[in-house]
Amino acid sequence: MTQRIPVVERILSANDELAEENKSRLNAANVFAVNLMASPGAGKTSLIEQTLPRLAEKLRVAVVDGDIATSIDADRAAAAGAIVAVQVNTGGECHLDAVMLHQALGQIELATVDMLLVENVGNLVCPAEFRLGTHKSVLIASIPEGDDKPYKYPGMYRGVDALVINKIDLLPYINFKMDYFQRGVEALNPGLVTFPLSCSTGEGLDAWVHWILENVKRKA
Amino acid sequence: MTQRIPVVERILSANDELAEENKSRLNAANVFAVNLMASPGAGKTSLIEQTLPRLAEKLRVAVVDGDIATSIDADRAAAAGAIVAVQVNTGGECHLDAVMLHQALGQIELATVDMLLVENVGNLVCPAEFRLGTHKSVLIASIPEGDDKPYKYPGMYRGVDALVINKIDLLPYINFKMDYFQRGVEALNPGLVTFPLSCSTGEGLDAWVHWILENVKRKA
Repeated sequence: MTQRIPVVERILSANDELAEENKSRLNAANVFAVNLMASPGAGKTSLIEQTLPRLAEKLRVAVVDGDIATSIDADRAAAAGAIVAVQVNTGGECHLDAVMLHQALGQIELATVDMLLVENVGNLVCPAEFRLGTHKSVLIASIPEGDDKPYKYPGMYRGVDALVINKIDLLPYINFKMDYFQRGVEALNPGLVTFPLSCSTGEGLDAWVHWILENVKRKA
Repeated sequence: MTQRIPVVERILSANDELAEENKSRLNAANVFAVNLMASPGAGKTSLIEQTLPRLAEKLRVAVVDGDIATSIDADRAAAAGAIVAVQVNTGGECHLDAVMLHQALGQIELATVDMLLVENVGNLVCPAEFRLGTHKSVLIASIPEGDDKPYKYPGMYRGVDALVINKIDLLPYINFKMDYFQRGVEALNPGLVTFPLSCSTGEGLDAWVHWILENVKRKA
């Protein structure tokens, strides 16, 4: 008789349980939490750098930065005005999971925070499979990545609550068919709220910041 | 007594064994094989599209395209002149492994092929951990991804035999410090052969094609 060892299922279910616990802690402290996901170089850290100063007078924001190595991102988040920036080095892992966020939350005095931005590891595949316990998942696409990404990474596009399309300042230099891109998005995630913007020029950032503030208000 | 179940080690070792078998099959047929890895949108498929016509009169090239879904890439490779293009849909997996390449090789008449280009799933983390049995691993970086990628994805930069830096035509529009990028590369992989190029303008492609031809010649 062969014994079945359902390792993956058990890992996911333990992760989901801890994600629920993370969410309860965030809710108890009235912290609105966002999980930012994207390819390497799509602009997660740049978006955080542009977002924090625009929230500075309204919200106290903590940042958790997931990375395989280095603390480059947490340093940038702290410099941009995060009241605390926790670096999680995953030691080779290609995604954050609920355990890592749980540990990071232990480093943050949640009562002093209104919002938590979690920067996941740069990856369009694995992070989609691990719930963290945040309230919203946001995907950052970018123009230079190309217009076929929704078709090629459907799992990620299907699972998110909002989509940022970064680097629109590069549209004149790149063959990116916005219609084709958006048809792909719409097929996977109908009615998904979308923010075309540029972290270089600042264009489009107001609408994104407005979305955050509305979500925080709804939560309060 | 607790029983230890070293699942990951067993998977990797089984993968490595099959990778050796893949390499033996390629060697027996005198096929030079390259594993192309990169972030989503760095230009793996574009590089294949630009490379194939430049090799057309010298080499018969087969392409294996790994993707989570769709056959967009294999279609493009076939249109660009691959004598056969095999699409491997990984069904959610974030990397190719030796089993998948083994199955793909079963679809190719290796005696009619001089070179095999394997396009891995777009991901800067997981593909680095799974040997396929190819002769060379090539990483494609791209200017819009940013100059900090070697520091943030060291495992990938450490393990490759050559580095393509794509989209150099976008250098005037992006704050990319080539010195900083190359210092990071040099620390991880000293003396790594590097090809700055643009798949849009064609600049720099000759050196890359020359490198392939020299490798094929050395193998023959």
